Amino acid sequence: MAHFFISLLTDFGYRDHYVGVMKGVIFRINPQVKIVDISHQVTPHNITEGAFLLYNVYSYFPPGTIFVAVVDPGVGSKRKPILVKTENFYFVGPDNGIFGLIYEEIKNFEVLELNNPRFFLSPVSATFQGRDIFAPVAAYLSSGVSPLEMGKAIKNFVRLPFTQPTFKKKEIQGKVIYIDGFGNLVTNIKAPDFIPSDKKQLKIKIGNKIISGLAKNYQEVEKGSLLALIGSSNFLEIAVSEGSAQKKLKGKVGDPVQVFLS
Amino acid sequence: MAHFFISLLTDFGYRDHYVGVMKGVIFRINPQVKIVDISHQVTPHNITEGAFLLYNVYSYFPPGTIFVAVVDPGVGSKRKPILVKTENFYFVGPDNGIFGLIYEEIKNFEVLELNNPRFFLSPVSATFQGRDIFAPVAAYLSSGVSPLEMGKAIKNFVRLPFTQPTFKKKEIQGKVIYIDGFGNLVTNIKAPDFIPSDKKQLKIKIGNKIISGLAKNYQEVEKGSLLALIGSSNFLEIAVSEGSAQKKLKGKVGDPVQVFLS
Amino acid sequence: MAHFFISLLTDFGYRDHYVGVMKGVIFRINPQVKIVDISHQVTPHNITEGAFLLYNVYSYFPPGTIFVAVVDPGVGSKRKPILVKTENFYFVGPDNGIFGLIYEEIKNFEVLELNNPRFFLSPVSATFQGRDIFAPVAAYLSSGVSPLEMGKAIKNFVRLPFTQPTFKKKEIQGKVIYIDGFGNLVTNIKAPDFIPSDKKQLKIKIGNKIISGLAKNYQEVEKGSLLALIGSSNFLEIAVSEGSAQKKLKGKVGDPVQVFLS
Repeated sequence: MAHFFISLLTDFGYRDHYVGVMKGVIFRINPQVKIVDISHQVTPHNITEGAFLLYNVYSYFPPGTIFVAVVDPGVGSKRKPILVKTENFYFVGPDNGIFGLIYEEIKNFEVLELNNPRFFLSPVSATFQGRDIFAPVAAYLSSGVSPLEMGKAIKNFVRLPFTQPTFKKKEIQGKVIYIDGFGNLVTNIKAPDFIPSDKKQLKIKIGNKIISGLAKNYQEVEKGSLLALIGSSNFLEIAVSEGSAQKKLKGKVGDPVQVFLS
Repeated sequence: MAHFFISLLTDFGYRDHYVGVMKGVIFRINPQVKIVDISHQVTPHNITEGAFLLYNVYSYFPPGTIFVAVVDPGVGSKRKPILVKTENFYFVGPDNGIFGLIYEEIKNFEVLELNNPRFFLSPVSATFQGRDIFAPVAAYLSSGVSPLEMGKAIKNFVRLPFTQPTFKKKEIQGKVIYIDGFGNLVTNIKAPDFIPSDKKQLKIKIGNKIISGLAKNYQEVEKGSLLALIGSSNFLEIAVSEGSAQKKLKGKVGDPVQVFLS
Repeated sequence: MAHFFISLLTDFGYRDHYVGVMKGVIFRINPQVKIVDISHQVTPHNITEGAFLLYNVYSYFPPGTIFVAVVDPGVGSKRKPILVKTENFYFVGPDNGIFGLIYEEIKNFEVLELNNPRFFLSPVSATFQGRDIFAPVAAYLSSGVSPLEMGKAIKNFVRLPFTQPTFKKKEIQGKVIYIDGFGNLVTNIKAPDFIPSDKKQLKIKIGNKIISGLAKNYQEVEKGSLLALIGSSNFLEIAVSEGSAQKKLKGKVGDPVQVFLS
């Protein structure tokens, strides 16, 4: 399996030099690899959000892609730097749950603690291991170095599982887990789990608003109106046609969302 | 004509996973192509703004470039997915006017409705056709698939023409059509249409301010002062030296701008 | 020395078409080169900030990299377009101090004024020389054109040196020179200059807060607490564990910071 792509996900933002430094480090080691930015605007220190974005994106990449995910409030502390090996991909980053949703979905994987300083920059700083550990390890992996030279398998690692909704007889209790740039409120209620044969019979409650039925697309209702639909990652979403549900409902991550199946 | 480059313009923002997903889809189909980001910060749902940015950028790219433009509030509704073929470029996106300024400038072009699901991801979602239609179509095009395999020529498509200023005997009435990141107010008054032989004789009015003559560059006036000049895309611009005309004038898109030629 | 990489640093932002236009211009001239974005969110017109970001990033890139830095409030005025040649890198941009920290660190370098319009777009605009001069010059350099064909060596250029802290017997007086996306306050006090053998003996004063000793990483103190540490570029930084020192202290660039060595 050739490794042509290194994909980056961080909370470093686009203004600072941090992402540029990581790219420089990677290209110094492997000038041939292609670097693809996923996002550098994960909310600072928000591991759960980073894990959700990575989960939504990874499976679309070519087999062999190496993902480097650095949302790392514990950098320089005792949390381990790790490499996760799956059938199709590598994941490189801190052991803090950033790969938690990957563990849940892929099932078959191996976690290695990165412990061979030969593949790190020297000295390793206590505040920027994206530069000193994760970027060079990804670059060496992409050059063909075996993971076995880089670390040793571990059995204990941070899982950070997905918060499942509560399923009752005629009701599902979920919550908003992500708000995208359009102001769409993404919930943890995933299709096809909750969809009855007649979609029109659903009622969705958020705050003091009740939405009847699922829309097929954003333009099925009038501009400015509230709607619910199955989003592109199969999660139930609350949206506003050509507008922002976040603004209209003053929505926040964690807001409760109920689905009534009667 | 070889297709080495796919250039992306969307309103997806830089934080969400949407752009990363499109890149993954493209590279899975054609790992050799180079992807170039134009902008992912088009104001959400603002087709006119997306069309203006695309118009300003496309002609600088190498012949053969495939542009994918996704500002698509009507995604999943009856609006068609299209491919526009010109002598030097391909444009892929929704039929909603996003290519309106291209139609006006290039004149010689063909529009195809994308109707062959063989080149789409399956199933096609109703909310993210950037992933399911536009990215894979662009990737297959870049791999050498003929447009004729992908769609059929259509004659009716959305044009969304440029709003021209009104020309009177000694006066041009235009408006602000774009405000850039420096706070420069870009108008729809284009050089050389309006420039008299003596540039000093021009007067430009915006709000209750009158600017005399055209500056050659931003430093011709004192720091913090208002000026007018011909911007890099040949439109008349109102600017502030080392400052923001948007802030100084509380400028908005749509604000009227008058040029007096006396 | 082969030139595989062109790295871009500008204050053009990510929404406008300006960066996309520069990339188009580069790829038209040299479709083989790889373009790497460092940052396009330098605060508009802030040359000092651009110089600091460039200084922090350049040395991590592969030898041969061509850096294009465009923070250029004086575009179109008498300020010269220049090319700086060092042992390992080229730097292309305006002569306004954007390369000031490079001059201080690298010592051995040559500055050429770009005066050969054969390597510019024509006509050269007075407001967007990133497109008309700096992008094409970088692209021709990457294609193997000799710098000597492009310009002539000059001895007078803008240096904009680094503002050094004041060293007293038991005290260093510095200031905040940069605030990163995490809200970390980066000072101009650089290690190892000021570090005594016993790091615990340091006291750092900012505003009316006093911090005792240097932390090793962000998690050495409680979440939300203030700390000081040596950042990844070896400057003294004031930070908040999993939070923002900028918000907690209402910090600004220029704020005085004192280190007491007693």
